[in-house]
Amino acid sequence: MKEVIAIVRMNKMNQTKKALTDAGIAAFFAHEAWGRGKGLVNSIVAAGAAQGYQEAAEVLGSKGKLFAKRLITVVVPDEKVSTVVDAIMAANKTGQAGDGKIFVVPMADSVRVRTSESGTCAIE
Amino acid sequence: MKEVIAIVRMNKMNQTKKALTDAGIAAFFAHEAWGRGKGLVNSIVAAGAAQGYQEAAEVLGSKGKLFAKRLITVVVPDEKVSTVVDAIMAANKTGQAGDGKIFVVPMADSVRVRTSESGTCAIE
Amino acid sequence: MKEVIAIVRMNKMNQTKKALTDAGIAAFFAHEAWGRGKGLVNSIVAAGAAQGYQEAAEVLGSKGKLFAKRLITVVVPDEKVSTVVDAIMAANKTGQAGDGKIFVVPMADSVRVRTSESGTCAIE
Repeated sequence: MKEVIAIVRMNKMNQTKKALTDAGIAAFFAHEAWGRGKGLVNSIVAAGAAQGYQEAAEVLGSKGKLFAKRLITVVVPDEKVSTVVDAIMAANKTGQAGDGKIFVVPMADSVRVRTSESGTCAIE
Repeated sequence: MKEVIAIVRMNKMNQTKKALTDAGIAAFFAHEAWGRGKGLVNSIVAAGAAQGYQEAAEVLGSKGKLFAKRLITVVVPDEKVSTVVDAIMAANKTGQAGDGKIFVVPMADSVRVRTSESGTCAIE
Repeated sequence: MKEVIAIVRMNKMNQTKKALTDAGIAAFFAHEAWGRGKGLVNSIVAAGAAQGYQEAAEVLGSKGKLFAKRLITVVVPDEKVSTVVDAIMAANKTGQAGDGKIFVVPMADSVRVRTSESGTCAIE
């Protein structure tokens, strides 16, 4: 059992939900997050800073700006991890910085509160 | 050491907090999340869609609606996982769709920032 | 690969961001959370309750108050976990109750959506 966590652009939430539904993944949850990746977001400013322009370096700042993102969490049996990853990739890959990240976390157990079912039964 | 993550109804937060406190679990954190499970929420609409009524199917939609939920995270030593799960189940099980899920995630280590204690000392 | 999750005071976010950046950790994400630790926050009220004053005990309440916190998540290769923990400790340790906790969660894989890179390549 794995927890697949995806950090995606806010405006990709509907496409991501649709891609997961189309791939047969019905259950997931989402929340707001703020994040930043390694990449710099404004490539003109970044290029300026790289060329040594002080103003550009100051715009980038030492603390780095955090951008509003959506975080989607899906819990699936091991054999469905690649289905989930592929669906999220298909909905979110633009090739531009800021496309997001997907993390796969091992999970020990899961329980459906309504029925007390546990293990993979609880997530299928 | 395990991280127990529960997704529960918003109006069950206080009962869940009380159940955890009564079970001797003092420390936890919570945040907002939006989610959906496998089940359809309005059973009349769902039954209509199953019988082929186009209007009902459209209400259900292809994207699926996400419902506001609360997500509670508790980190405990392995031997307290069942205490936490039982407390959350007792507070949240109504037998209706939407009761929520509990996930158990393995944890490698934890550190209490104030004292620099690590391992299970940091969570007891 | 590990996920390092830190729960810190809201007013420590900028210092924590700066400490991570200075330690060479560029990518992370954050979100709001509400939490409580084992400790009681107002030490005068807590002392009063311990001495048996009913009013103080009532202020503490049976359910416990949750405090607004920030939750920061950083995903790094195993060999950088201690760098991240040290940076977060340096920025957040005041010695007072409420300094927060750091959790280290094992991670199975990660994927950079833009390039489809996976494994540690995706987080470096």
